[in-house]
Amino acid sequence: MNWYLQTGKESDVITSTRIRFARNLQGFKFNLKIKTDIEKLKNKIKENLYLIGYGLKYLELKDMDDITKMSLVEKNLISPEYALNKNETGAILINDEENICIMINDDDHLKIQVFSSGFELENTLNYSIELDQKIEEVLGYATNKKYGYLTSLPTNCGTGLKASVMVHLPALEKTRNIDKVFYTINNFGINILGEYGQDNKNNQNIYQISNKRTLGVTEQEIIENIRVVANNLIEQERNARKFLAKDTIDLEDTIYRSFGLLKNCKKISLDEVQSLISNVKLGTDLGILKELNDSKIQKLILFTKPASMQKFLGEQYEPLERDIKRAEIISQIMEEK
Amino acid sequence: MNWYLQTGKESDVITSTRIRFARNLQGFKFNLKIKTDIEKLKNKIKENLYLIGYGLKYLELKDMDDITKMSLVEKNLISPEYALNKNETGAILINDEENICIMINDDDHLKIQVFSSGFELENTLNYSIELDQKIEEVLGYATNKKYGYLTSLPTNCGTGLKASVMVHLPALEKTRNIDKVFYTINNFGINILGEYGQDNKNNQNIYQISNKRTLGVTEQEIIENIRVVANNLIEQERNARKFLAKDTIDLEDTIYRSFGLLKNCKKISLDEVQSLISNVKLGTDLGILKELNDSKIQKLILFTKPASMQKFLGEQYEPLERDIKRAEIISQIMEEK
Repeated sequence: MNWYLQTGKESDVITSTRIRFARNLQGFKFNLKIKTDIEKLKNKIKENLYLIGYGLKYLELKDMDDITKMSLVEKNLISPEYALNKNETGAILINDEENICIMINDDDHLKIQVFSSGFELENTLNYSIELDQKIEEVLGYATNKKYGYLTSLPTNCGTGLKASVMVHLPALEKTRNIDKVFYTINNFGINILGEYGQDNKNNQNIYQISNKRTLGVTEQEIIENIRVVANNLIEQERNARKFLAKDTIDLEDTIYRSFGLLKNCKKISLDEVQSLISNVKLGTDLGILKELNDSKIQKLILFTKPASMQKFLGEQYEPLERDIKRAEIISQIMEEK
Repeated sequence: MNWYLQTGKESDVITSTRIRFARNLQGFKFNLKIKTDIEKLKNKIKENLYLIGYGLKYLELKDMDDITKMSLVEKNLISPEYALNKNETGAILINDEENICIMINDDDHLKIQVFSSGFELENTLNYSIELDQKIEEVLGYATNKKYGYLTSLPTNCGTGLKASVMVHLPALEKTRNIDKVFYTINNFGINILGEYGQDNKNNQNIYQISNKRTLGVTEQEIIENIRVVANNLIEQERNARKFLAKDTIDLEDTIYRSFGLLKNCKKISLDEVQSLISNVKLGTDLGILKELNDSKIQKLILFTKPASMQKFLGEQYEPLERDIKRAEIISQIMEEK
């Protein structure tokens, strides 16, 4: 099963972990703009792919339909900017499990990404380092004694490492502590963003936290910093849940009403569904809601997103039908044995 | 089964029919205020009750607890004013089926009421007349050649007859035609009031329509007038439902969301429950909602009202618990086989 449909350690709060290395190859300019240069880069990667292994396949963005591309964005496998700006020249390396996805010729030649369910900083980092070393062996990176791995943007220099975890913070939101948390985390050298990195707040109460600095710190220091902040968030969120659980009936009422609406609606917007899913996820995580389980909730999170919906249904539909189809998918997922 | 838990003719729109006669006995002043006079009146009725028959039992309001009294109001068997003002001296004659309820010493000596489920003007009137004649034989009424039956209030004079039907008009409400309907009906010599006669609008979209005039018209003319207006309302409401049903998904969504909330809420106010019940009743009447039936809906309507809830549970509860208990009752009624 794909990592994004699984649950892992501490997944009541941390839904997933990602390690991303920004890397550039020797012998190529940074931030390639000229088509022949880009083709040369991609050819080098394609020709040597068999030496890298890891079950990676080479896919050009221009060979994908929009729905496939959008569903990669919805799964956080590629950034929305990459999907949009590299429509013609972009290409990715991806394996069947989709826990490795490498964007080629984003602002760097390679954005190597490794994903895990739940809270898995150490294992994901180790696996990423292994993969990174293999790619370096095969393709050769641009490095510098002073700055470490050289990157197109100075913010990615040094380790080139961005470590991030997705956190589900419904109780901090409901108890109106989320702004305080945002403020504290920002002062801690950590970014906190809505999913896809687009906005700070979202209906599903899922946020991405990641390191700001990549230079002058070691990889271990980066993940240690993220770990400390994440553990602090886990503690704060769990305390907020305990606080909410004191007024059991209010909490149960919110959770079960959300469940009832999800189960019975005949049309539903993305905004509403994400807010309801956030509530039922809180309900299963607290052991209040028995009618759903983690795996169904992971499916609900993914397959209610516009492009993934069409992947799930195996058919396209008119924009007007979207909210109706979404309700159908929800009911289908909920009724699965 | 009690009439108010049953459904009858045209019960998609007309939930029940009531015929009420205002009558006064010979040999007693109108509108008795002095306790000994009232006792005399009640004694005469009590002593002759065996001659009237109809399974009627004599009950004093002061022997009832507040919950019993309130539940009579909730079932529309006695008026809220009567329950409040005749707390000490009031008494009723009522049968086991509760389709006959006679208030003693309201503004008239007797308010004879007969109830039916659904749209049953003719049968209910005939049965009322039979009962009325029997009571007249036994107790003797105050009458006058010019004014017919004499009543304490001139508005009840003549026939002393108030015929009323309860109508469920959710589609006229949703299509925002209800104010127009109110306006037209008022000009037709017909009163339209919320349930209990308290206010014009209510969350459950159930209204009482009744004749304004009692003098200078025959009983047949009164019920004919109500029948015409009721039939017109049935037609307008059904047309509005057809109109709503054109946008099937919107209507289904509203109905099933209401069902989902009723089924899953853990606490709920009277206002909200009545609005949700109105929607699910519309759903079963239109054949859209299969998960409920008329009988369960009649139970939901009655047993979510404060006093009837306590009757249903067979126990009292703290006011703070009311919304929680209400949710429990709903789930219990819904799950009944």
